[in-house]
Amino acid sequence: MGSSGIDSGDFTLPGEAGYEGLTLRLAEAWGADTIRDSDGTALSPELLASGKSIYSTICLVRSINAWARANPDKVQQNYLMSFPVDAASTEVEIGLLEGYSKDQFKVNFDDDPREWWQVFDRTTGEEVPASDWSFDAARGVVRVRNARRRHSYAVDFLAYRLWEEISMYNHVTNNWGDRERLMAVEPAYPETQAALLEYLQRWLDEHPATSVVRFTSLFYNFAWFWGDDPALRFVYSDWGSYDMAANPYLLRRFEAERGYRPRAEDFVNTGRYNSTHNPPGRVYREWMDFVHRFVVEFGRKCVDLVHRAGKKAYVFYDDHWIGVEPYSPRFAEIGFDGVIKCVFNAFEVRLCAGVSGVATREIRLHPYLFPTGLKGEPTFAPGGDPGRDARNYWMVARRALLRAKVDRIGLGGYPHLVEPFPDFVDAIADIAREFRALKALHAAGAPYVAPCRVAVLTAWGRLRSWTCSGHLHEHPEVELTRVIEALAGLPFDVRFLSLDDLLSGGIPDGVDVIVNAGRAGSAWSGGSEWNDPRLVEVIGDWVAEVGGLIGAGEPSACAGGATWFRLASILGVDRETGSTICRSKRRYAEPSGRHFIAADFAAHDAPAFYRETGDIFAIDSRTEVLAEAAGSPRIAVHPYGAGRAVYLSGFGSDAACRRLLHRAVHWAAGEEASFSDWTCSNIETECAYFPASRSLVVINDGDSPALTTVTCAGGQRREIELAPYGIEILRL
Amino acid sequence: MGSSGIDSGDFTLPGEAGYEGLTLRLAEAWGADTIRDSDGTALSPELLASGKSIYSTICLVRSINAWARANPDKVQQNYLMSFPVDAASTEVEIGLLEGYSKDQFKVNFDDDPREWWQVFDRTTGEEVPASDWSFDAARGVVRVRNARRRHSYAVDFLAYRLWEEISMYNHVTNNWGDRERLMAVEPAYPETQAALLEYLQRWLDEHPATSVVRFTSLFYNFAWFWGDDPALRFVYSDWGSYDMAANPYLLRRFEAERGYRPRAEDFVNTGRYNSTHNPPGRVYREWMDFVHRFVVEFGRKCVDLVHRAGKKAYVFYDDHWIGVEPYSPRFAEIGFDGVIKCVFNAFEVRLCAGVSGVATREIRLHPYLFPTGLKGEPTFAPGGDPGRDARNYWMVARRALLRAKVDRIGLGGYPHLVEPFPDFVDAIADIAREFRALKALHAAGAPYVAPCRVAVLTAWGRLRSWTCSGHLHEHPEVELTRVIEALAGLPFDVRFLSLDDLLSGGIPDGVDVIVNAGRAGSAWSGGSEWNDPRLVEVIGDWVAEVGGLIGAGEPSACAGGATWFRLASILGVDRETGSTICRSKRRYAEPSGRHFIAADFAAHDAPAFYRETGDIFAIDSRTEVLAEAAGSPRIAVHPYGAGRAVYLSGFGSDAACRRLLHRAVHWAAGEEASFSDWTCSNIETECAYFPASRSLVVINDGDSPALTTVTCAGGQRREIELAPYGIEILRL
Repeated sequence: MGSSGIDSGDFTLPGEAGYEGLTLRLAEAWGADTIRDSDGTALSPELLASGKSIYSTICLVRSINAWARANPDKVQQNYLMSFPVDAASTEVEIGLLEGYSKDQFKVNFDDDPREWWQVFDRTTGEEVPASDWSFDAARGVVRVRNARRRHSYAVDFLAYRLWEEISMYNHVTNNWGDRERLMAVEPAYPETQAALLEYLQRWLDEHPATSVVRFTSLFYNFAWFWGDDPALRFVYSDWGSYDMAANPYLLRRFEAERGYRPRAEDFVNTGRYNSTHNPPGRVYREWMDFVHRFVVEFGRKCVDLVHRAGKKAYVFYDDHWIGVEPYSPRFAEIGFDGVIKCVFNAFEVRLCAGVSGVATREIRLHPYLFPTGLKGEPTFAPGGDPGRDARNYWMVARRALLRAKVDRIGLGGYPHLVEPFPDFVDAIADIAREFRALKALHAAGAPYVAPCRVAVLTAWGRLRSWTCSGHLHEHPEVELTRVIEALAGLPFDVRFLSLDDLLSGGIPDGVDVIVNAGRAGSAWSGGSEWNDPRLVEVIGDWVAEVGGLIGAGEPSACAGGATWFRLASILGVDRETGSTICRSKRRYAEPSGRHFIAADFAAHDAPAFYRETGDIFAIDSRTEVLAEAAGSPRIAVHPYGAGRAVYLSGFGSDAACRRLLHRAVHWAAGEEASFSDWTCSNIETECAYFPASRSLVVINDGDSPALTTVTCAGGQRREIELAPYGIEILRL
Repeated sequence: MGSSGIDSGDFTLPGEAGYEGLTLRLAEAWGADTIRDSDGTALSPELLASGKSIYSTICLVRSINAWARANPDKVQQNYLMSFPVDAASTEVEIGLLEGYSKDQFKVNFDDDPREWWQVFDRTTGEEVPASDWSFDAARGVVRVRNARRRHSYAVDFLAYRLWEEISMYNHVTNNWGDRERLMAVEPAYPETQAALLEYLQRWLDEHPATSVVRFTSLFYNFAWFWGDDPALRFVYSDWGSYDMAANPYLLRRFEAERGYRPRAEDFVNTGRYNSTHNPPGRVYREWMDFVHRFVVEFGRKCVDLVHRAGKKAYVFYDDHWIGVEPYSPRFAEIGFDGVIKCVFNAFEVRLCAGVSGVATREIRLHPYLFPTGLKGEPTFAPGGDPGRDARNYWMVARRALLRAKVDRIGLGGYPHLVEPFPDFVDAIADIAREFRALKALHAAGAPYVAPCRVAVLTAWGRLRSWTCSGHLHEHPEVELTRVIEALAGLPFDVRFLSLDDLLSGGIPDGVDVIVNAGRAGSAWSGGSEWNDPRLVEVIGDWVAEVGGLIGAGEPSACAGGATWFRLASILGVDRETGSTICRSKRRYAEPSGRHFIAADFAAHDAPAFYRETGDIFAIDSRTEVLAEAAGSPRIAVHPYGAGRAVYLSGFGSDAACRRLLHRAVHWAAGEEASFSDWTCSNIETECAYFPASRSLVVINDGDSPALTTVTCAGGQRREIELAPYGIEILRL
């Protein structure tokens, strides 16, 4: 499956029985060396015998549905919080599944509710004593007595899941009617493990042509609770949370191992659950660690079977990836040979490229070969223009491929849909060739990086490298997502640090600029851990001596202090949250636009941000405001000792913001002089220089023709013309 | 001084020596029955003998400057927080007055700093032990040792005030050069009281022609700390705070009386001081009560002297009004005969009109007879149009005069400035006649009020009736200011309740609709007191049975609960503050505009608010959204039991917002049927019906001609044409 020239190799094509000729014609056009099956498709003998490598997908936990039906107490469970009910009198009745999908959930009355559930007065946050509540399994309700009128009551209860969510989503979206509903079994039980391993062994025996077993993914899906009201179709979802992996069996094992048992409320957390966007608490961190250990251990057994069958095992880094944790040091123990990541964004390319402990990293490109896209828009359907879509997605992802090496690309879906769209066939052929050319450059030697090494500082650190939990479009309000999207294509070494890392080890060598971005209280800006003053000490000393700090949104924000931004003295700005409106705000000089960071925009035409933090003010006379809106600084710079800080009141997705960050990193690092090296004059274009092969790659990040000048290291300048979406590779 | 017909009486004119003829001509034109002096002016014998009543202003505490110079330890003091300094090593030196005006402040080293000051590590909030800091009086610094690097340190210290702030402001603004700088003496010392009473007696003896002594005001100015940096001219200011009344003498008396002594930090409060915009804590409330008692006691002595001299005593409800508290039950004990309030806004007219315990309520209109206005714009100067200004200010204030009776109007400043502006003379003559006509209607019997009695719920309640601390333009970010401005001219009985009132006595009879408006954590929305669940109980029961609730901005918002708005179940909406972004938000029906509240605006043309709260979401299926922006409800209604709630994501100052609130109150009260009674069809116009005199007053709130139809109680409709700024009074 290695690369074999610019026209073929490193490409995974979905095959489709009944369309063998088309599949093979596409394989030829795109240089595919591998054919894969998809959910709902099987590969025919003709395709299996085509001489291509064969990927076969498997989602173990939903593969043994007959066993699951026979063992209904061994399907996966989770804690749910009932929708709160206001007490109109001293008695309240709470319908446990009211508002939730009964297709997905069934209340678990088998494990004693008195032992496993909790009932809360959500108005006070106090637990209702056991003597004050009772349940009626037949009616699926809990009754609270001695309630306080007008207080809200809610129950934390255990629910079985009757329908695995990815199956459910595909089933509902594609109107699969009475096709079987797949359940996800809980793999922690020895009985389940036996059944799964037996199933896997049989499956391996029955798939002799398969060269790669592609796990989708391992055992636990990300959290996804469905509602039963069309106005609230989904109640809760988080790509990164472990909330769907809790059940009494695992909780008892946890207790035996660690000496205490997490309570229902440790999962429910006032209905916030354990969202990846919030800083993780101690119990949740330990729970993650426990589940991860289990997934690694049992995952290893599954992978061993695959290896014993002479096949490779790849993991799809989406869907049931909970507990897999490719950025955990223990990930490699599972023994996967490859990782596959579907990418909408550049940061997801970096996420894939940065996984260690596997030989092969593959990205799955968009659009999928489906009639419609994720938002219901036509792709391979009348009105769709999948060739344009493919070029646009590629243009977004390609920036990251200039900086980091990925080994393979692939598609998913149903090839028969491609037939009416010859432009799409051409687009993918071009993309595949571009990909192979870039891969070859990386293989010859790494690209130039600027001497400004960046560390992104969050509550999660390395474990959530290159992700803010999900794709950009899901939570556009999360500033850091756009920041890492920009960083994904900029010529910097980037690492991810946690606040804990700083507390335990200080700021490691090899960091020139720290970036902290996000809303107050979020895991991304850091949350209440900023109450630990050692963070201010460590960062303050480091910036004052040598470092650069870039804050976006509400960096280091935390309630309860003298300032809202705990690093306000360094940043030179703070935010008015209402309690100090009687303190006058310092006037600052009109933004002049004459600053290194502002060199690419006029003073009154600073880059737009997706969302403005607002109510920002300068805290001392050295704060220089480079852009403002409605009297609130949007871009400001500030010296601190020998170091420098930059504040951005938000961040955007366009070329202007990418350039702003590019300059901000250089300035914060005191590296203005090296900025122009291997930088494009036209901000809609970017470039990478590969010294080993003396190759300069220049890309057009837009759909219009572009003229750009690259300043080479010696100061020579090269002018390059680029077609829309274009790429040029120059041998220097 | 009583009224004497439409053309004269009830009008106070500033007189000016040297312009006696002009003063008397203006008095004739405007029907003035009273002549006053102003700061920096004296009335000449000719004016004193004009037959008019004479107001003479006196500001006692700054009247005995020679005594103050001789007794420098008896000028007023306050606590200040030094500007925080970051520790670059384990030693920090803090310049106490660094950043503050040395014209205003002098550090008090006379009272032992070790007893009276506190030093804080503002990074941790911990007090620095006394053994770790020392002071150097000669250099005006505090030195901290054993500092933690990068932590911020600040000192809470006592400062004398060398220049009374109103004197300072007038002096600096008018370039008074080397004119004497007036100091404010501390009236608590027996020696000061003796000097002040002696001065007052002499002054009374020397002013035989004076009929009214107009106090400006009593003893303590609102908080106003000046900076010495042109970029930070004022450091802190709050019209309502008691922060400038602290000194060791008063603190010791407080301790003797109440058994404990407030600490420096009780005043400094992390540099937030005791801003009226923040909910008052227990110590601050007790301090206010203590100061108020003292002001009432010593104020009574001053007023007694005035009365014994056969004169009346009025108080100017601005400047040194701290401790006077006209909405306190103890205010009447001072014995004032009248209160004077300067008004920029309608709510200030209501504030004046609502004071009980005095015989006379007078408003001082704008513009002042000064060359320039508060923002430096020309008024009585080339380029100014004071006639237009007068009409505009009057139009704003007049709405409130339709609803509540005020006894007198007046002007301030220097009459000689008026000469080049005959249009101003005409404007004031018209305004004075309108005023007298309205006063006469009130005298004959109160106007109609709709059957929807409103209570505005804040942390302050009645004590801060009809004010959010200062004029609207000072803190436009305070939503409640615009809400009370609208209420000031609407036909409702309005009262102000505190959260404490609700806790101690429930919701009183005679309330139909509760309004809670403001930013989270502010005194206006209520702050952390919402953690007391009894508030939810009391309001929930009341709304469910009978009541209406209107919330604006972040009503009942308080961190730490299951919802951000503690009344979310009632309001039907809550705010996403970042911790629940993984919980999906309920979809709601597209706003249709078909709702009683929305009858005056199209669905896509809802009234604009000054500021949008944003990130609002509907919490149940009964929430009806009437307007939205960027996916966030702006106007929503929700039933709760038998009651109703309205949510507004902000509020504006225009006629559309006034009408929105007018309708919202009727709807929340279940009083849609009575809405049209005595209501104008044209929202730029308003009316009041006075049943006793069968008079209908219709006003034009705009500067364009207006046609409007008034629905009378029986359902008859009257069409009225109004001139720009016009008023019509119809006898029905």
